[in-house]
Amino acid sequence: MRIQIFCSTFAALIWSIMAKTEISTLGEFGLIRHLTAELPVLQASTQKGVGDDAAVMNFGNKRVLMTTDLLLEGVHFNLEYVPLKHLGYKAAVVNFSDIYAMNGTPTQITVSLGVSARFGVEDLEELYAGIRLACEHYGVDIVGGDTSASMTGLTISITCLGVAAEKDIVYRNGAKEHDLICVSGNLGTAYMGLQLLERERLAYSGQTGQAEEVIPAFEGREYLLERQLKPEARRDIIELLRKSGIKPTAMMDISDGLSSEILHICHQSNCGCAIYEDKLPIDYQAAVVAEEMNLNIVTCALNGGEDYELLFTCDIKDYEKLIPLDDIYIIGHITKPEAGTVLVTRGGGEMALQAQGWQAF
Amino acid sequence: MRIQIFCSTFAALIWSIMAKTEISTLGEFGLIRHLTAELPVLQASTQKGVGDDAAVMNFGNKRVLMTTDLLLEGVHFNLEYVPLKHLGYKAAVVNFSDIYAMNGTPTQITVSLGVSARFGVEDLEELYAGIRLACEHYGVDIVGGDTSASMTGLTISITCLGVAAEKDIVYRNGAKEHDLICVSGNLGTAYMGLQLLERERLAYSGQTGQAEEVIPAFEGREYLLERQLKPEARRDIIELLRKSGIKPTAMMDISDGLSSEILHICHQSNCGCAIYEDKLPIDYQAAVVAEEMNLNIVTCALNGGEDYELLFTCDIKDYEKLIPLDDIYIIGHITKPEAGTVLVTRGGGEMALQAQGWQAF
Repeated sequence: MRIQIFCSTFAALIWSIMAKTEISTLGEFGLIRHLTAELPVLQASTQKGVGDDAAVMNFGNKRVLMTTDLLLEGVHFNLEYVPLKHLGYKAAVVNFSDIYAMNGTPTQITVSLGVSARFGVEDLEELYAGIRLACEHYGVDIVGGDTSASMTGLTISITCLGVAAEKDIVYRNGAKEHDLICVSGNLGTAYMGLQLLERERLAYSGQTGQAEEVIPAFEGREYLLERQLKPEARRDIIELLRKSGIKPTAMMDISDGLSSEILHICHQSNCGCAIYEDKLPIDYQAAVVAEEMNLNIVTCALNGGEDYELLFTCDIKDYEKLIPLDDIYIIGHITKPEAGTVLVTRGGGEMALQAQGWQAF
Repeated sequence: MRIQIFCSTFAALIWSIMAKTEISTLGEFGLIRHLTAELPVLQASTQKGVGDDAAVMNFGNKRVLMTTDLLLEGVHFNLEYVPLKHLGYKAAVVNFSDIYAMNGTPTQITVSLGVSARFGVEDLEELYAGIRLACEHYGVDIVGGDTSASMTGLTISITCLGVAAEKDIVYRNGAKEHDLICVSGNLGTAYMGLQLLERERLAYSGQTGQAEEVIPAFEGREYLLERQLKPEARRDIIELLRKSGIKPTAMMDISDGLSSEILHICHQSNCGCAIYEDKLPIDYQAAVVAEEMNLNIVTCALNGGEDYELLFTCDIKDYEKLIPLDDIYIIGHITKPEAGTVLVTRGGGEMALQAQGWQAF
């Protein structure tokens, strides 16, 4: 008995020397799939669990949506160039974006913070001011949370509830052959904003040879910084589609890059896709900065991530309704699964789309 | 323009040398109150926001409850003696406990994990096995989450939804003069379990002079370890009260210690209380270990925390119904606010109760 308890309670002492499989061998999505494989459904109110932008619950008349995001200092943000107020704003907005991506309306959030000793009350006020600003802007209530000391750095975990009528909810699995593939806004811009900030941080900290360039060259590039530091969720697009009588067949928001996201839709809808390189909406400033930095802007647009634009598919019969809509771009169409998931290049060639996404591991 | 953007985007570079107010000057509850002061309510569905065990939303027929907990390695748990499976179980259960403390039923959770490179897939399987076991035991679905790399240690953020009929929900603010104060189970036991584990950890790592005592002396004390490592939420008590036709007037779970929690109820209900030292339910094993360690068991019972027992108040007319109920103890009564919040000692003296609670900062 003694030995058994010893072993079980002190197992942790030796766990670190046990054989282990590196998490990177599965990747982020692989890991989540692995850990959540064959989850049972025990509650009648659970309508959709893991695997979309948000979970869907049936508690009564409307459906309740739920999504969560965890942001860790040094992984998801760098406080050397992200002001705390912006960080708070963004941390809230990325959750709202997930609810809009279900064609729902965000309603409440809880905010959990882990805070190390180097942060003072004023810092948390700044962070909270950003969260509150986002909530005010999107009409969302802060209804709870948890605040704790942390040994290292800042941890932000936000969970968001939303509502939608059953008939309005758009999942990732509804795309079908001949559907149009659309995106809002432009792609790769937030990524170029990050590159700018990162370059200036290195210059500022003297880690490049260009000491004379210490003053950041941000003039005329404010939009790129804004896309990175203070992204917005596309509530306007959701409202525009509704007003235009268009219900997407599948939808998600673009947090990990277009390639990664369209593959999610194709996988869950069991279909293929053709995306046209020359249809990708790219911001002029982003293209100029990419050129300056010797980056391929198409690669950035496909894999950049953090744009929080909406990616959706529509029935071909909605084509006429889509055309006049501002800031929505048709970039391709859904194909049979056996046609694969391809990018049609400017030259007319085909390349398989790859989910580089955003590798958190 | 250049300077302004420079200042705003690089503000973070200098935030750390700005004057700051140490978070410890406000304390955990003070900080939360400060940050969430005067939050507006923007959504008609928000019925109760910050300030109870869970938020309450009105989306249709039933009410939806929502609570969240953040657990950080080195602050809330020590993997030297907490096995990952137990940790997962506990991380889920503490959320269920908050929902039961509203007299609700937990239904869904989301699980966000931040994981550093020293963890392998097998470690996360262990952690998830514990979470899944808890969910199975309490009939709760895992419906989403977020998993990310972390620079340091393990972060676990769980958010739980629950349901309750409007008429069944019990808040913290309903206690009134002459109400009976009750607790379930026993108090201070989880804290004594922690002391045992901590003592054995020091012995094991050779940090005490008692090298000959390296083999942990846990025999006969398994219950204390279990209370610390694998606590349960008191669903049984909620069911028992319901079956007995008792609806508490106020209720919360004891995560930070009895003193801290009863003060929350008295503050929110605008009343005082008298708790009787000789009525505090104390486990025999816990008392023996406290004696052995020169700790005052009453202090442990008042301030220990992590017991996850239920603290509730009942109308005096329910006295006869309460008496026959197993594992529920009447420990005092609610008084006028001007009578203060006191502990009546065995000798008949009075001491003001103090919210030592669990100081995370």
